[in-house]
Amino acid sequence: MANKKIVLGFSGGLDTTYCAKYLSEDLGYEIHSVIVNTGGFSDEELQKIETHAYKLGVKTHTTVNAVKGYYERIIKYLIFGNCLKNNTYPLSVSAERLSQALHIAEHAKKLNADAVAHGSTGAGNDQVRFDMIFHIMIPGVEIITPIRDMKLSREQEIAYLKSKGVEMNFEKAVYSINKGLWGTSVGGKETLNSKGMLPEEAWPTQVTKTGSEEVKLHFEKGELKAVNDQQSDHPVDAINHLQSIAGAYGIARDIHVGDTIIGIKGRVGFEAAAPMVILKAHHALEKHVLTKWQLQWKDTLAQFYGNWMHEGQILDPVMRDIEAYFTSSQQNVTGDVFVQLMPYRFQVIGIESKYDLMSSKFGKYGEMNTGFTGDDVRGFSKIFGNQTSIWTSVQAENEK
Amino acid sequence: MANKKIVLGFSGGLDTTYCAKYLSEDLGYEIHSVIVNTGGFSDEELQKIETHAYKLGVKTHTTVNAVKGYYERIIKYLIFGNCLKNNTYPLSVSAERLSQALHIAEHAKKLNADAVAHGSTGAGNDQVRFDMIFHIMIPGVEIITPIRDMKLSREQEIAYLKSKGVEMNFEKAVYSINKGLWGTSVGGKETLNSKGMLPEEAWPTQVTKTGSEEVKLHFEKGELKAVNDQQSDHPVDAINHLQSIAGAYGIARDIHVGDTIIGIKGRVGFEAAAPMVILKAHHALEKHVLTKWQLQWKDTLAQFYGNWMHEGQILDPVMRDIEAYFTSSQQNVTGDVFVQLMPYRFQVIGIESKYDLMSSKFGKYGEMNTGFTGDDVRGFSKIFGNQTSIWTSVQAENEK
Amino acid sequence: MANKKIVLGFSGGLDTTYCAKYLSEDLGYEIHSVIVNTGGFSDEELQKIETHAYKLGVKTHTTVNAVKGYYERIIKYLIFGNCLKNNTYPLSVSAERLSQALHIAEHAKKLNADAVAHGSTGAGNDQVRFDMIFHIMIPGVEIITPIRDMKLSREQEIAYLKSKGVEMNFEKAVYSINKGLWGTSVGGKETLNSKGMLPEEAWPTQVTKTGSEEVKLHFEKGELKAVNDQQSDHPVDAINHLQSIAGAYGIARDIHVGDTIIGIKGRVGFEAAAPMVILKAHHALEKHVLTKWQLQWKDTLAQFYGNWMHEGQILDPVMRDIEAYFTSSQQNVTGDVFVQLMPYRFQVIGIESKYDLMSSKFGKYGEMNTGFTGDDVRGFSKIFGNQTSIWTSVQAENEK
Amino acid sequence: MANKKIVLGFSGGLDTTYCAKYLSEDLGYEIHSVIVNTGGFSDEELQKIETHAYKLGVKTHTTVNAVKGYYERIIKYLIFGNCLKNNTYPLSVSAERLSQALHIAEHAKKLNADAVAHGSTGAGNDQVRFDMIFHIMIPGVEIITPIRDMKLSREQEIAYLKSKGVEMNFEKAVYSINKGLWGTSVGGKETLNSKGMLPEEAWPTQVTKTGSEEVKLHFEKGELKAVNDQQSDHPVDAINHLQSIAGAYGIARDIHVGDTIIGIKGRVGFEAAAPMVILKAHHALEKHVLTKWQLQWKDTLAQFYGNWMHEGQILDPVMRDIEAYFTSSQQNVTGDVFVQLMPYRFQVIGIESKYDLMSSKFGKYGEMNTGFTGDDVRGFSKIFGNQTSIWTSVQAENEK
Repeated sequence: MANKKIVLGFSGGLDTTYCAKYLSEDLGYEIHSVIVNTGGFSDEELQKIETHAYKLGVKTHTTVNAVKGYYERIIKYLIFGNCLKNNTYPLSVSAERLSQALHIAEHAKKLNADAVAHGSTGAGNDQVRFDMIFHIMIPGVEIITPIRDMKLSREQEIAYLKSKGVEMNFEKAVYSINKGLWGTSVGGKETLNSKGMLPEEAWPTQVTKTGSEEVKLHFEKGELKAVNDQQSDHPVDAINHLQSIAGAYGIARDIHVGDTIIGIKGRVGFEAAAPMVILKAHHALEKHVLTKWQLQWKDTLAQFYGNWMHEGQILDPVMRDIEAYFTSSQQNVTGDVFVQLMPYRFQVIGIESKYDLMSSKFGKYGEMNTGFTGDDVRGFSKIFGNQTSIWTSVQAENEK
Repeated sequence: MANKKIVLGFSGGLDTTYCAKYLSEDLGYEIHSVIVNTGGFSDEELQKIETHAYKLGVKTHTTVNAVKGYYERIIKYLIFGNCLKNNTYPLSVSAERLSQALHIAEHAKKLNADAVAHGSTGAGNDQVRFDMIFHIMIPGVEIITPIRDMKLSREQEIAYLKSKGVEMNFEKAVYSINKGLWGTSVGGKETLNSKGMLPEEAWPTQVTKTGSEEVKLHFEKGELKAVNDQQSDHPVDAINHLQSIAGAYGIARDIHVGDTIIGIKGRVGFEAAAPMVILKAHHALEKHVLTKWQLQWKDTLAQFYGNWMHEGQILDPVMRDIEAYFTSSQQNVTGDVFVQLMPYRFQVIGIESKYDLMSSKFGKYGEMNTGFTGDDVRGFSKIFGNQTSIWTSVQAENEK
Repeated sequence: MANKKIVLGFSGGLDTTYCAKYLSEDLGYEIHSVIVNTGGFSDEELQKIETHAYKLGVKTHTTVNAVKGYYERIIKYLIFGNCLKNNTYPLSVSAERLSQALHIAEHAKKLNADAVAHGSTGAGNDQVRFDMIFHIMIPGVEIITPIRDMKLSREQEIAYLKSKGVEMNFEKAVYSINKGLWGTSVGGKETLNSKGMLPEEAWPTQVTKTGSEEVKLHFEKGELKAVNDQQSDHPVDAINHLQSIAGAYGIARDIHVGDTIIGIKGRVGFEAAAPMVILKAHHALEKHVLTKWQLQWKDTLAQFYGNWMHEGQILDPVMRDIEAYFTSSQQNVTGDVFVQLMPYRFQVIGIESKYDLMSSKFGKYGEMNTGFTGDDVRGFSKIFGNQTSIWTSVQAENEK
Repeated sequence: MANKKIVLGFSGGLDTTYCAKYLSEDLGYEIHSVIVNTGGFSDEELQKIETHAYKLGVKTHTTVNAVKGYYERIIKYLIFGNCLKNNTYPLSVSAERLSQALHIAEHAKKLNADAVAHGSTGAGNDQVRFDMIFHIMIPGVEIITPIRDMKLSREQEIAYLKSKGVEMNFEKAVYSINKGLWGTSVGGKETLNSKGMLPEEAWPTQVTKTGSEEVKLHFEKGELKAVNDQQSDHPVDAINHLQSIAGAYGIARDIHVGDTIIGIKGRVGFEAAAPMVILKAHHALEKHVLTKWQLQWKDTLAQFYGNWMHEGQILDPVMRDIEAYFTSSQQNVTGDVFVQLMPYRFQVIGIESKYDLMSSKFGKYGEMNTGFTGDDVRGFSKIFGNQTSIWTSVQAENEK
């Protein structure tokens, strides 16, 4: 009788290496490993992971280049919404995991797998994201999570793998790093407590640029299409282009303190030069071309959208409804944004757009206007405060 | 017959000097000038303004030291709400004008004035704030606004004052600056268009500190009570203390692009070292001690609160309701926040609080927990995604 | 020299009759009257109004049949959003005025008119709606409002018209009635104070049906397409069909208490049988086919959408963004809704939809489910309450 | 060795009778049963339940009269918020279960119990509410749920109890009914599917009144203090008084379709005469005394508050923050509301309040005002539409 097929989300790290070995040797599964690249792996790294997978005895190993789809399905909307969790974190890892979970589920469906596995522990957000996407997309397919289920410690995993003759680097890095198109997270040591900033050497990108540099971002309907007048075939290329310029300034390093899906609080460092410059530039452009209430409702919806995404709920149809709102709101978000980059910081210095609502033709702030008169404002002020006037009179009468 | 009494909001600048002269000499009013200090004037400056007022022939001149009341009535809640208009601007001027308008109205009421005057032009936000507060607090008292009503240019005002023998500095500063407890605004030249950053010399506070410095902020129920372990008698003192430390780093300079009350877009520079450090430190502390939904609803309410305040609606009773929410939410916002100051930037590096919800006792993010098991999360994930699972199945069936 | 052209919104009532006479005879305008039918006028009535207009000496009179456009542009979205102002009023008149203002502005633009006139007084909402739409759509075209500008009383208008030999019925109805596709408003007497219900005879539609009747509404993507299995060419026909069935039950009569745009409170009676049955049926269907958060965000957006529409802000682009959200949300709002009509009330008794998420296949409420187990819920409950658990423990420790 | 102590939430129905027997005889617990009366049980019924409990062999049985505390802790705020889940359901059962869970947890704490038990199945909302409150309030105390854990069918429970010689009425009612201060739920048969209204005989309260009756409700700061001028010692008495008048009209019967906490959709009938009359009367009063934005934010917060309460999250501190908002908002919600009761329906016919903002002194809707002029509104309209004017001009220019 043929072995049962399992699809394993595989990064080549300790946890998923353990899973590969354990699922095949102890549980007797036929393993189909899959790695989903959302922008964090080089071709060389992907090649190494493939080799490692086959050495562990997987039946097939698949590399999914997901980066453009990841942009189209998730990142685009995070930009439209200027999404920053708790006003800080661009959702780097949260978004990535969902993209990975969706591809793994697709793969399991295609292979008609009996089971699917992920290497999450029982202590973080990722387990919920993987579990949920799998329940929704491939209901009935068994989910196996050896590290979580057996509450394995790092030491136990290493001992097992050594006993099986697996060769790999078992040294524990001080910081656990996760890299992708939308930023790099850095966790460990200082982030494990409520106080402490990561030291310079903990950040993956070293600061090599000094002085200052102006960069010009061109947006069309909310999407980054060119950097410094160099058109890109795809926004992903523009993001990478910007990262290659901005990264070495050490821009947009911070620590996010947030609520996990499972109710505990966590802290994680991240660096996200291109994402943060794009978000702030995009928002600056919006402030010029959108009306007050367009801005206000976008913010309100985006706060929910980012949180709900973070909590793994990308497949809730409410997300499609909000994306429809976002897309409509971007109609006029077209123009250039000028940003000055400096070591460790940047500043939006202005915009140019044919949709700019701040224009001398329609009355300049602080100068006399042609569109209306002081008398109009006099009337406006009276009516604008009318209800509170009435309330105040009623109040005064009752206090007599 | 006695002249009619008018109360004039008086800063001693060109516009209000014109008003003083015009209201008394051309309109025959008995003038009672009043200046409301919300933290921007030194005793010496206030003395000069008083002398200037009496030289212009006012009947009485009154200096209101409003800074503590300003904090208690407005700033405290802007901190509770982490209020930043368009996620950028701490509402420095908006808040100040309201405090001033409230005191001027009180003064007019006390003097039983026939009229009240302010020096606003017809082109900005301030006219609405003054008008509205006056309509509400002293209904029936005539509001006179010579600059707006006669659409006077700077040159016309100067010519008039010279013809009356008034001596003052008539030179126009390149930038118009407004200073107060909650920051300093800087408008002119670069801010009049959609592009351009203010040059170094335009900022009132020069950057004299280099290197880096750690500062410790102690909050009690959301209020700043001590800086570097030095207790303050009043949060205003703590704010000033922090400003004296942080100001010289050139921290928190930015340009705000916003919607005026009258519908046009405007840009204004500002520097607000202490306010911004406090807001970010306070928010960081909140992220540790408030629950997810406490944070979420605070944000939503604060976005409205800040905007409505900006639009002059401080007397709408809905503001009292939101303040009740804010006050309740601050119950546990007690603890220390550690901030690193560097030239042009700062970083929150952590907190210590007995109300910290991120604590190893209750499960560390990324490590195994004692409060729950992986199996609990398995169940959670299933139920948490249950509705979208059902939705997806229904969808699939209909697409068959 | 040719007279200046003015477009006059004309209903044939006292106010607009006055305007027609005054604008031509006293001000010398060439008048182009226009009436916009949003469902409240019969062909016969429209004919009479035309005759009346020409008798008053207008140069041209135009009848715009706006009802389908009114549905497509406004009513459709009010249904998608289940919009009820203050949870009561289907925005009958508010929506209508905007449709009318838009057509009048279009007409003025087409005729290249020098001015545009409406008959509003200075005391209600309509003046703001007309003014604003005109300012936005035909900026620079003068707006003339004789009744408001001259603060005319009814008696003054009648005296003037009689002096000009105008013949019409000058008797004042006790109630002022406004009829349209989306309901009929009834104001006067009882509604002028905070207490008092309109008497039976005040309601335009008399109650002639007794007993009870079941009606079946078929929705497709949120739009009413058939009533009692009778397909309609256009939703407007379906609405009228339903009104012809439900009207005589005296359903959906109520009094709306609301905030006017100008800050005062007002009360108005209305009857809206078809609109209210449709809104409640549509909402019932949505409760079955939308996810929890789809429902929640629709409600939140709709509350704003209805209010902003009521305040005349239909041209703010934020309305297009919300409409995009609404449209996306209606993807699955397809199915039949069964409603029981009785004198003065109705009851939704159920729905049938292939998108129904309440289906025995996926677990019945109160019975054991196949999709998940009690153990899953155990885990869920633990994690779902985890943060509050932690908060409570922290609290308890601090209270020791 | 002494037996372990368990506290059992006990209603005397089949499920909890099974639990009592099973926990003592099969698991060997010392049982302390507790019933929490939230307004649904008469003294006689409570006496019978006590007798039944002791017959089953419980060690102690406790009756908690929770109705006033239930009002103070929950119902009061549901009234302040006009809370109706999905705009329909007054949260009758949801609120009750939480009150019960809180008392049971208190009891377990007082007795220092080793375990706590509830009779919920694995298919509904109640299990989550009980589990969560217990996890939060008495962490570490074991939760035992025999019906859920053993997936027992009704038949299995009966067989077990008969085998143990327990005598009680084992007949299954067609409808399962739950009665309390805030309404009575009725589930079964018709409510199990998406279509079907409960028949007349299914409703617990029979309709015996005909004709119509006016009732006067007096609110003080949002709380019902008198009905028909009869002061009550406590709002609970006023609610019961109103119920005794309104109940026999068959008012406020409806079917609620909602999202359970566990993701499935459910339908349940309910009748809630007094609650619904109070909610609508209270809301009507608020429409007269609160400002526009007070109303709007109350609605938004209440929608969340009701849902979060429904989902069992009463102990999340965000609920205290919202309650602070609600309490502040009720400052002026004082006055009389007049309601007409008729068979199957009721109508609010007006209010009287010294805080009424709709008052002829301040300008009547539709009549000329003293507080402002038509010219003020002209100015207002221009400025109010200014931003959309600018947007429209910019748009037009780009479309050239």
